[in-house]
Amino acid sequence: MICVSVIYPQAPGKRFDQVYYEQKHRPLVMKLLATHGITKYEILQGLGGLGPGSEPMFAAVGNLYFNSVGDFQGAMAAHGAELQADIPNFTDIRPQFQISEAV
Amino acid sequence: MICVSVIYPQAPGKRFDQVYYEQKHRPLVMKLLATHGITKYEILQGLGGLGPGSEPMFAAVGNLYFNSVGDFQGAMAAHGAELQADIPNFTDIRPQFQISEAV
Repeated sequence: MICVSVIYPQAPGKRFDQVYYEQKHRPLVMKLLATHGITKYEILQGLGGLGPGSEPMFAAVGNLYFNSVGDFQGAMAAHGAELQADIPNFTDIRPQFQISEAV
Repeated sequence: MICVSVIYPQAPGKRFDQVYYEQKHRPLVMKLLATHGITKYEILQGLGGLGPGSEPMFAAVGNLYFNSVGDFQGAMAAHGAELQADIPNFTDIRPQFQISEAV
């Protein structure tokens, strides 16, 4: 199984609307990609680092699981533009991406 | 549920032994923390970024799930030193940590 991590680095002055992200963006992703092989979408909402009161490195990470990189690429070819267009509705952070094998 | 991400940033010249990490380190963590509230340990093994042939930001991310931050803190108080001592057996990357709410 592969995992596509959509990583939103924390930075001063940046906004991130967790409610919209969880209640609007994730359902949109699941609806559009349901027929394109997405198996799970986990949100990691940043709380902090190890030290008491420390800031998290990432405001949020969305982990999208697919059976294969090909499934993910097909999903993006079909709906990537529409999903990207929704990002400004919840954040002005520019996301970073990593593809991983989930084991 | 909370997720403690142990993040190993990719860097030139660094080593990361995925086999040891999966077959020795994870079982050690699960054995020692089983009675300290760990519920799951997922490994994300970095494959790449979005661009073809691009390097992953992270060689690996270990996502350790607990019911609460208190459970994690108790687990670290009991076994943190022993687990940290195992890290040089698979990598010379200094890990970064983030605590998140998994939703």
